[in-house]
Amino acid sequence: MEKAQYEKGIQQFTQMVGIESIDPLREQFKSLSPDFEKYVMGFVGGEIWSRSNLDLRTRSLCSIAILAALGRTNALELNIKMALNNGATKTEIIEVFFQVAIYAGFAAAWDGLVKADKVFKEIDAG
Amino acid sequence: MEKAQYEKGIQQFTQMVGIESIDPLREQFKSLSPDFEKYVMGFVGGEIWSRSNLDLRTRSLCSIAILAALGRTNALELNIKMALNNGATKTEIIEVFFQVAIYAGFAAAWDGLVKADKVFKEIDAG
Amino acid sequence: MEKAQYEKGIQQFTQMVGIESIDPLREQFKSLSPDFEKYVMGFVGGEIWSRSNLDLRTRSLCSIAILAALGRTNALELNIKMALNNGATKTEIIEVFFQVAIYAGFAAAWDGLVKADKVFKEIDAG
Amino acid sequence: MEKAQYEKGIQQFTQMVGIESIDPLREQFKSLSPDFEKYVMGFVGGEIWSRSNLDLRTRSLCSIAILAALGRTNALELNIKMALNNGATKTEIIEVFFQVAIYAGFAAAWDGLVKADKVFKEIDAG
Amino acid sequence: MEKAQYEKGIQQFTQMVGIESIDPLREQFKSLSPDFEKYVMGFVGGEIWSRSNLDLRTRSLCSIAILAALGRTNALELNIKMALNNGATKTEIIEVFFQVAIYAGFAAAWDGLVKADKVFKEIDAG
Amino acid sequence: MEKAQYEKGIQQFTQMVGIESIDPLREQFKSLSPDFEKYVMGFVGGEIWSRSNLDLRTRSLCSIAILAALGRTNALELNIKMALNNGATKTEIIEVFFQVAIYAGFAAAWDGLVKADKVFKEIDAG
Repeated sequence: MEKAQYEKGIQQFTQMVGIESIDPLREQFKSLSPDFEKYVMGFVGGEIWSRSNLDLRTRSLCSIAILAALGRTNALELNIKMALNNGATKTEIIEVFFQVAIYAGFAAAWDGLVKADKVFKEIDAG
Repeated sequence: MEKAQYEKGIQQFTQMVGIESIDPLREQFKSLSPDFEKYVMGFVGGEIWSRSNLDLRTRSLCSIAILAALGRTNALELNIKMALNNGATKTEIIEVFFQVAIYAGFAAAWDGLVKADKVFKEIDAG
Repeated sequence: MEKAQYEKGIQQFTQMVGIESIDPLREQFKSLSPDFEKYVMGFVGGEIWSRSNLDLRTRSLCSIAILAALGRTNALELNIKMALNNGATKTEIIEVFFQVAIYAGFAAAWDGLVKADKVFKEIDAG
Repeated sequence: MEKAQYEKGIQQFTQMVGIESIDPLREQFKSLSPDFEKYVMGFVGGEIWSRSNLDLRTRSLCSIAILAALGRTNALELNIKMALNNGATKTEIIEVFFQVAIYAGFAAAWDGLVKADKVFKEIDAG
Repeated sequence: MEKAQYEKGIQQFTQMVGIESIDPLREQFKSLSPDFEKYVMGFVGGEIWSRSNLDLRTRSLCSIAILAALGRTNALELNIKMALNNGATKTEIIEVFFQVAIYAGFAAAWDGLVKADKVFKEIDAG
Repeated sequence: MEKAQYEKGIQQFTQMVGIESIDPLREQFKSLSPDFEKYVMGFVGGEIWSRSNLDLRTRSLCSIAILAALGRTNALELNIKMALNNGATKTEIIEVFFQVAIYAGFAAAWDGLVKADKVFKEIDAG
């Protein structure tokens, strides 16, 4: 992983999670595996999320759709938070779960809405 | 299924698949099960796709993301076609598969890109 | 969503979750999204669960099979409870997980049996 | 794998696929891997399908539900055929896909209905 | 399930989970369903894990890969523990999640790494 | 994507698919999306497959396990071919599907074995 790409990714994620959350997030990844942090920042952030062709808000909504369909816990929670920073409204995030309901089932939508509700309440509580 | 809702759904799908494709699509569903056609038109089309809160192009891109993540053959193909009618460009559709690659794996992205390529070629061939 | 269908669905779910549980369940759905409650009641309950062709007990066992295979937490728990009200015995519910074991793997069966055990214990504890 | 259990499984599958189909099916499994045939017959057939607690028709419908939810091609096709021998009607099999639609999504139901349609047509054509 | 095969499986699992953990594990399975314990020991342990052709360490790493891809909670945790007894190092287990990241997505890898981290910490804490 | 990493990945994949197959494979990816080819070569090949900690044969077997569990068609086929070049025997590849059978279900193992059989026959036919 090239240093420039890694730093580009950290910058990209900083914009999406907020300046106050980037270090705890990176520490969490590093504690699991330093190389995992390196790839999430450098490739997921520095290569994919920083591409053009699709705005960040749309990328966020598509990501939430994927993660709810597959039932991925940690990444779904993070992506709901990031979606708000990327310009999506709560209403739009909830709306994605209706597309999830028809194409991945009401059960996936339910699990996802419970997760979104938890994230929204944590944010409201500051 | 209320008649008004069913007709609203047919109208919604007509807009999304094109006037020349709506009857063959409905016949295909009816041949599998008349009630399946009724629910796809009336509920999927008349209730969910016709909601506000999120534009059709974004709904399409989220749907493609879900269907590629889950590997659903028939609906993925239809949704790639509908996405073009819903205002998404080929570039944007392909871009969704990069979000699929990071969150559902490169293997799901590959299978999805092969399907998109097939759809694009069929459309280009008229 | 037509009012008659919505009320038919509430009636259907009342029968399946019990008169004492329908209001808390509906409130839980409404707190996630009022429209989600509307569709779960009106479409899932009022259109699908209220169909003929297959008795409620068989529908319940098939639903448990699907939800265990896909690992959907909230809906699996609810459907195990509803299965008991729909005429399935604990023995039959557990038996479904043996079909899950061969066709979705022992790991899916294990996760599902843990959930069933939790539900059965809560019911026994009143 | 004990010989008695293996033979019990062959008997079980013979009942479910029909006397004319058991040898081609076993040969197909053996050509993939002799041990795979041994386990499918001896364990899947001789241990699980031959259990009591749940009748064969219900086991078949639950299996179809699982396989459609997971998108498993070969086993779904075989289980639709077996369901007919196990006492399920075409109407009941199709009905299972409505439970699939609500809990695993309309896309999984569509793929499954296409497969069921293919099997039904092959059987009708003799 | 033949008695000899069942006992062979218990022996196999005893080797993989450790002499101090085999009875609690079996009791956990039995409390969910006595027959589930019988099949996990006799078939999963006595037939599959005790096969030759592939060493236990490789079997463990492949199993972790499957379970992380499918998001199966209980079996993933058990298989991470067993992998250490089967000769895999922590480094190798973590390395598997990089293959998971590329083929099942970074989200599956993240969920799996969180689980591995929990298991490693419990073991270190004795 | 840094040029050095991209070239490292092409070299890595050349070793795994064989000198005669690398160009057709790259052309196939490029025809789907030039950037997809860039990331598969540069990241999947140049970052992950070229890591130490786990030998190529074990990486291949884990990848086959993941892809069979998730039912990913194109990548499963490629990874079965690559596994043979990475030092796995046909017997070992087939053995992986027994781990798939217990942890992802016999249905996933069946679909995977059919794919493996196809690849083996194509290779034998030259």
